[in-house]
Amino acid sequence: MTVSFIGSGNVATHLAMFFQTHGHEIKQVYNRTADHGRALADTFSAAYISTLEELDTERIDLLLIAISDDNIPEVIREIPEKTKAIVVHTAGAAPLSLLSRFEHYGVIYPPQSIHKHIPIDLANVPFAVEGSSENVQTTLLSMMQKIAPRSFACTTEQRLALHVSSVFANNFTNALYRMSYDILHDVGLPFELVLPLIRETAEKVQNRLPKQVQTGPAVRNDLKTINTHLQFLSNTEELAKIYQQLTQYINKRRPKT
Amino acid sequence: MTVSFIGSGNVATHLAMFFQTHGHEIKQVYNRTADHGRALADTFSAAYISTLEELDTERIDLLLIAISDDNIPEVIREIPEKTKAIVVHTAGAAPLSLLSRFEHYGVIYPPQSIHKHIPIDLANVPFAVEGSSENVQTTLLSMMQKIAPRSFACTTEQRLALHVSSVFANNFTNALYRMSYDILHDVGLPFELVLPLIRETAEKVQNRLPKQVQTGPAVRNDLKTINTHLQFLSNTEELAKIYQQLTQYINKRRPKT
Repeated sequence: MTVSFIGSGNVATHLAMFFQTHGHEIKQVYNRTADHGRALADTFSAAYISTLEELDTERIDLLLIAISDDNIPEVIREIPEKTKAIVVHTAGAAPLSLLSRFEHYGVIYPPQSIHKHIPIDLANVPFAVEGSSENVQTTLLSMMQKIAPRSFACTTEQRLALHVSSVFANNFTNALYRMSYDILHDVGLPFELVLPLIRETAEKVQNRLPKQVQTGPAVRNDLKTINTHLQFLSNTEELAKIYQQLTQYINKRRPKT
Repeated sequence: MTVSFIGSGNVATHLAMFFQTHGHEIKQVYNRTADHGRALADTFSAAYISTLEELDTERIDLLLIAISDDNIPEVIREIPEKTKAIVVHTAGAAPLSLLSRFEHYGVIYPPQSIHKHIPIDLANVPFAVEGSSENVQTTLLSMMQKIAPRSFACTTEQRLALHVSSVFANNFTNALYRMSYDILHDVGLPFELVLPLIRETAEKVQNRLPKQVQTGPAVRNDLKTINTHLQFLSNTEELAKIYQQLTQYINKRRPKT
């Protein structure tokens, strides 16, 4: 397929690389900031365009919008309405209907945390794919499954659920790692001490349900330890509150013996 | 060393196996519930004892208490006061001073989540070691470092911090995985979809600081997405609250641009 990109950030960079590696042609890159956009375009021997009117609407099969969610509506207004391309955004929480002024449109959402400078194997990622019609859905899904076999068709509600659950599994988890880091740092201990535990916790749920492997004072209802911990956290109110709330969550769900 | 165990649960089982594999002799196993205690004793060709008076106080070098934190004080009262053994508990949050009626005592705390039936390589675990005197500390630390090289000497406060930070890094993280599971399950999607993300998140902090790899709507201050997510969670108040609190935590710490 012939693909043009809108955006040149983390997601655009990795997706463009991924698409080119798998035989698709990157034709144009649009970005508001010229040097970023040009740098990405050059990487793929694509053309940099500084206005969306320059989009080659007759010759591209796919127009990929990979920019921050908040900027999507504004950019969409500037894309020529008449195009043979399927216009696609890559956001987890933006509605499909944002794109309804085009004839063919869809969503390709990778539930992954993507950084420009950290390598990632997108072939393992289960892309959530939506299409404006059965035809578009089939086209997008078959294209994606060829390069990322775990990709699947979904509804807008399912995509949103996947996005929210990714926030819990990734963003919030990373925030807990940060709290763990701070607690250790404050007593002069290195974060390295909990790294095996972090890895082990993530590995355990790869083939077991989270509720089956829950450990700790909350699931044991070990009130003495919980109080000792809260006492320890008493001068960082924010962490004490998070401790209480998550302990309550686990405790309420502990298996009754 | 000659070691007797008090307890036959998850920690006792794995520790006894670990100690025996590394050349220590398991001599006695005490447990309130006879069949559990006897099963563990048999595994190591050790003697099962049904009262703590039967402890071979003259011939054991180490007495390891590996039972739930709440039961430690009661058990300690029943151990003969005069013993040549170093008496050690394995709890993260119980004070060292609980053991002060003995001549030599200490703590060996593994910051790990240990299940009876899940294999674990204790050689990688950084055991936190405390001793009642410099001598005892040196003895315990040198014994532990031979079998688990990352073991280190620490204070009671540091051990408690390590325990609390393990709760954040492991127990609470696993609770987030459970929330993620439930969110997906409610819209008919499999938990498998976020497993690569979970693994990736845990791997990223193995050689980067959590604050360097934070992603998501909270750190981008993407209020539109955050509101869409809260809207989505509006009929599960508990998750909405946790979402808000963790989002606030991340947002407050985002790098100012």
